[in-house]
Amino acid sequence: MNFASDNTAGVAPDIMTALAKANEGFVLGYGNDAWTRRAEQRIAEVFNRDVASFLVTTGTACNSLAIANFTPPWGAVLCHENAHIVTDECGAPEFFGNGIKLVGLPGDNGKIAAGVLKAALEKPQWGAPHHVVPSVLSLSQASEAGTIYRPAEIRELAVIAHAHGLAVNMDGARLANALARMNAPADEATWKAGVDVLSFGATKGGAMAAEAIVFFDKERAAGFDRRRKRGGHLLSKHRFVAVQMEAYLTDDLWLRVARHANAMADRLSDKLSAAGIAPVWPVEANEVFALISRATCDILKAKGAAFYERLPDNLPASAAVKPDSVLVRMVTSFATTTAEVDAFVAIASAR
Amino acid sequence: MNFASDNTAGVAPDIMTALAKANEGFVLGYGNDAWTRRAEQRIAEVFNRDVASFLVTTGTACNSLAIANFTPPWGAVLCHENAHIVTDECGAPEFFGNGIKLVGLPGDNGKIAAGVLKAALEKPQWGAPHHVVPSVLSLSQASEAGTIYRPAEIRELAVIAHAHGLAVNMDGARLANALARMNAPADEATWKAGVDVLSFGATKGGAMAAEAIVFFDKERAAGFDRRRKRGGHLLSKHRFVAVQMEAYLTDDLWLRVARHANAMADRLSDKLSAAGIAPVWPVEANEVFALISRATCDILKAKGAAFYERLPDNLPASAAVKPDSVLVRMVTSFATTTAEVDAFVAIASAR
Amino acid sequence: MNFASDNTAGVAPDIMTALAKANEGFVLGYGNDAWTRRAEQRIAEVFNRDVASFLVTTGTACNSLAIANFTPPWGAVLCHENAHIVTDECGAPEFFGNGIKLVGLPGDNGKIAAGVLKAALEKPQWGAPHHVVPSVLSLSQASEAGTIYRPAEIRELAVIAHAHGLAVNMDGARLANALARMNAPADEATWKAGVDVLSFGATKGGAMAAEAIVFFDKERAAGFDRRRKRGGHLLSKHRFVAVQMEAYLTDDLWLRVARHANAMADRLSDKLSAAGIAPVWPVEANEVFALISRATCDILKAKGAAFYERLPDNLPASAAVKPDSVLVRMVTSFATTTAEVDAFVAIASAR
Amino acid sequence: MNFASDNTAGVAPDIMTALAKANEGFVLGYGNDAWTRRAEQRIAEVFNRDVASFLVTTGTACNSLAIANFTPPWGAVLCHENAHIVTDECGAPEFFGNGIKLVGLPGDNGKIAAGVLKAALEKPQWGAPHHVVPSVLSLSQASEAGTIYRPAEIRELAVIAHAHGLAVNMDGARLANALARMNAPADEATWKAGVDVLSFGATKGGAMAAEAIVFFDKERAAGFDRRRKRGGHLLSKHRFVAVQMEAYLTDDLWLRVARHANAMADRLSDKLSAAGIAPVWPVEANEVFALISRATCDILKAKGAAFYERLPDNLPASAAVKPDSVLVRMVTSFATTTAEVDAFVAIASAR
Repeated sequence: MNFASDNTAGVAPDIMTALAKANEGFVLGYGNDAWTRRAEQRIAEVFNRDVASFLVTTGTACNSLAIANFTPPWGAVLCHENAHIVTDECGAPEFFGNGIKLVGLPGDNGKIAAGVLKAALEKPQWGAPHHVVPSVLSLSQASEAGTIYRPAEIRELAVIAHAHGLAVNMDGARLANALARMNAPADEATWKAGVDVLSFGATKGGAMAAEAIVFFDKERAAGFDRRRKRGGHLLSKHRFVAVQMEAYLTDDLWLRVARHANAMADRLSDKLSAAGIAPVWPVEANEVFALISRATCDILKAKGAAFYERLPDNLPASAAVKPDSVLVRMVTSFATTTAEVDAFVAIASAR
Repeated sequence: MNFASDNTAGVAPDIMTALAKANEGFVLGYGNDAWTRRAEQRIAEVFNRDVASFLVTTGTACNSLAIANFTPPWGAVLCHENAHIVTDECGAPEFFGNGIKLVGLPGDNGKIAAGVLKAALEKPQWGAPHHVVPSVLSLSQASEAGTIYRPAEIRELAVIAHAHGLAVNMDGARLANALARMNAPADEATWKAGVDVLSFGATKGGAMAAEAIVFFDKERAAGFDRRRKRGGHLLSKHRFVAVQMEAYLTDDLWLRVARHANAMADRLSDKLSAAGIAPVWPVEANEVFALISRATCDILKAKGAAFYERLPDNLPASAAVKPDSVLVRMVTSFATTTAEVDAFVAIASAR
Repeated sequence: MNFASDNTAGVAPDIMTALAKANEGFVLGYGNDAWTRRAEQRIAEVFNRDVASFLVTTGTACNSLAIANFTPPWGAVLCHENAHIVTDECGAPEFFGNGIKLVGLPGDNGKIAAGVLKAALEKPQWGAPHHVVPSVLSLSQASEAGTIYRPAEIRELAVIAHAHGLAVNMDGARLANALARMNAPADEATWKAGVDVLSFGATKGGAMAAEAIVFFDKERAAGFDRRRKRGGHLLSKHRFVAVQMEAYLTDDLWLRVARHANAMADRLSDKLSAAGIAPVWPVEANEVFALISRATCDILKAKGAAFYERLPDNLPASAAVKPDSVLVRMVTSFATTTAEVDAFVAIASAR
Repeated sequence: MNFASDNTAGVAPDIMTALAKANEGFVLGYGNDAWTRRAEQRIAEVFNRDVASFLVTTGTACNSLAIANFTPPWGAVLCHENAHIVTDECGAPEFFGNGIKLVGLPGDNGKIAAGVLKAALEKPQWGAPHHVVPSVLSLSQASEAGTIYRPAEIRELAVIAHAHGLAVNMDGARLANALARMNAPADEATWKAGVDVLSFGATKGGAMAAEAIVFFDKERAAGFDRRRKRGGHLLSKHRFVAVQMEAYLTDDLWLRVARHANAMADRLSDKLSAAGIAPVWPVEANEVFALISRATCDILKAKGAAFYERLPDNLPASAAVKPDSVLVRMVTSFATTTAEVDAFVAIASAR
């Protein structure tokens, strides 16, 4: 019953097999190899565009490098106030951006509303040399609340951002889950909706450690190979990160994994709801957030369930918070089984 | 006949097996797992000391993070002028160190002599606020010339460095090769000789992507977990980097691999010498540097040999440079075979 | 009728005279001169302590350098959400701090309440390597709302900060106004109340360009001379910044100027109140904030009054905001005259 | 007898008078004033071009900000190995450039020869992502050896630099001395010769603290106002830095001062030569470098002469170094008198 994170699962079997298979013979390092070419080709196919892509091993590197590419050091990154880049990356974007400022915007369901973005950008304060320059809008797909942006929402936000000179970054650590949920083509939900650069995660979807920075306009990737290198993020035995991405994008593995994880989240959510424990935010990807009692929380842990408590920030007004309520997050993955879900719910609903 | 680098080899079989074996069940991310504990334990055992160690996936990250920990932004890092951190990391140390300065010192055989270090540190220029502060001495083991520092040499340099307030970093991307050659215990050639922080590489020795920053004084590692995280170098599925290091240090795999690579380098060097192509620097690790004619170089490449040409900087006075001489570097690894060596030499000596 | 800022006034006559007088003979540069020694001595006397002080020419440099000295790059600076360092320094603290994060706290009257600070520091999020480390509490004295912290308030905040390992910085761009208002000794309102490092401004008080970073614990200033130099903030003809500070602190000029400016603010506030335009925040230093109608605002400007409009953020609940209300800020200085104040009020109250 | 530096002199009388005169009335801060407009206008006139210029108070800030504008963080700045930016700015260029690398080139007489620059840029090492990108050529005018680059020399270097994609920075802390010596128009020796951005110093020429970054292509100054601000280098009472530059460039004060300083250096050089103490480098600006005996050095100091000893690096082969030789630097300024020069020489030649 491990719902702590989608990174507590191991490596999807197909990816592990591919890794082992790639281990033959001598291959030039640093991306000068056939696996890298194929991974890049797969990414281009998936997004239906001639993109520039760069592989790294962590989501934090992916986000920070991507963002730094689109902002001067005196730039501001507008994002949801609970975004991973704000709360969980120990200042990595600020480090890679040489002191950029992250400006957190409020928003229901973990998402930024168009009106909020517009108001923020139209504040009179941005003009003078005393003020940082809004340079990037970063959207988390799925959001930290487990919700997703539809293409039309992305487009509306991107139009506002572009009109004010900002580039649009998507933190797509769980993009696959969002696409699987919407049954939307990858292009429709990214560059066709206005995304300029994508942090495309494979790790949470079953890779060992593989993420891609995807530039939808290749010309804007100038210099990025050195940016990655000096961040220490260019692997020498690069084929082994490339083959992960290749396998992830082969035979729709990425979407199959995402659909399974989403289905497990739905099952968990549905069964908890039936037991009177409704999710606090819509379950749109592979995360379920719920308020449970401290006693239930304790017993679940005692019986071996793993999950994280979260700060009850930004709960919707409808959330039924009681004095002993605990906000918990359950994440599903390719490795989650119906048995685990059912066992978890059985314990939770016994209370 | 691939001698381009020790990173063109794949993953040593034992390490690949260990990776596959580690892929079972749910495990907490970010290093909170048994593999990480065991890898740390192995490192402590190998170095015979209660150290603090941190795993990352690239040597550049390893060096840059380690060095940044020991220097203020206005610090200088003294190192050989051909050191990897100076020439091949695209300014990563400067980036992680927030604008530190790398001061390259000259030196025969890729090594810094005690007198050179002393003279550099006793230059009167260092005192005032206008000048950077020498803060770190970085030694490459093995050096970029394929030579190694003996414990007594390290000790002599470290005593000078410490007397001037510098910490001693060792770039140990090929430490195993150096230890295997000297048949020296790891402690004698590191902390007992005065090394404060080690970049301990496993990748060139057969790992997929695993390097450790090893602090011999645990207290000096304060804050380092965040330094690594904000560099984007804390892996989420951390067990998979840890298990590589664990396997590398199990049953002396690391030393066995190094011995084999060294032996292949010796064989290559001996046979080339016999054919009149003497190495320009002593072959003390797994690298052979030699001057060959352009014609020989071309024919080797035409017949499928892979190796890199290097700038003929800092050649010893004894080197017999001819107008058409090319300086080439051949690197051996766990995967190098005697057949490859012999085939290479056969072609080279046919000219 | 210039109330735009206290930096629109020129140089106080005594300071200009001192500058001219210092212009004789040859003097070593970079602070190795008698004026610098005397300025340092005056600062020590004023604060009744053997401090380490460093002169620079801008408040932004002063704050940014001071803060950077007390936080690792992965540190967080807690401050009021409207603090100058957050809103008006174009990311300078983030730049000098190598990507630190500024965390803005809400608070009435431009001030941080002890409970708010405590709650922020006791949030469970700070522990892991994923999160930045609260490292500095920065207090603006006077605040951006023109209010001041009393010694007891500072002490309460400092105790909390110190208990959590934070250093306390005071942005004292208008410290003189605060001290003059409270009639408090400088030591009582700074280090005796727990301030570790002070940005001590003279520019707004009549200097041409002179600010001092004052370390109350000299040992914590180690390396700061180089930090200043590499920021480009060590003047070569240093005597001319030093003599400004010396003159500023001679014969209580700094307090006399502050008392005058405060008195002018009081007069302005009192007369506006009498005319039905009550200040929105208590007038405790040399700034008056008031809501006036757009029509009054326009006519004031048309008649030559200079002042800035401000975003109506964080207005107190008691503020009588009307649809056409404009929040304006009036700042007084050594150069403000009663005639100007009265003329301004006459126009404002005519509406 | 103060020859320690041209910054040991005070402020030229005309500039001090102008400062006092500017001290009237209220003036908007941060450069929104008539003095700033006039200073910018004067700079444009002097350089005979519609430039973008920005004032700061130190040469280190001037150089560092200018250079940072023209290089990505992974860029290299090529300059003479004894350039001020390399040796005397405590890593400021590296700090402002977010970890750029300064590559010192050797060269006689403190200057870079075209062949040396060309060879450096044509080294094969610059291509791959592992290597920094040469981005700026920085020329010191006058050089650290007191010599100057003629327009033709600058042009030759700039053509090479531009052909390799580098921008050309001129550190013109003593540009006035160089122009006065050559009797060359400012445009001929800067942008017409290929300089892209100039650090234009007034401080050494008699200002209190005033330097200008001058962009000869205005479009390349985009964002620079924020770069300056976040470095803490935008003065609030900006008129007082502007008026210095205005006065400096009025009625040819800058050239008159430079001519005087140069003449004093010539006198010193000529008289020392006559006494058998020939300068080691051509005296082309306001600096004289000579080898004197330790005994002479001591007696000069004992009798009140002020000057600095320098490391005897890069002495020309012709220099007659004796065991007790000391390399000393004498700098003249607007305030140097013939009497001081003669007194100095009298003592020096008595030995």
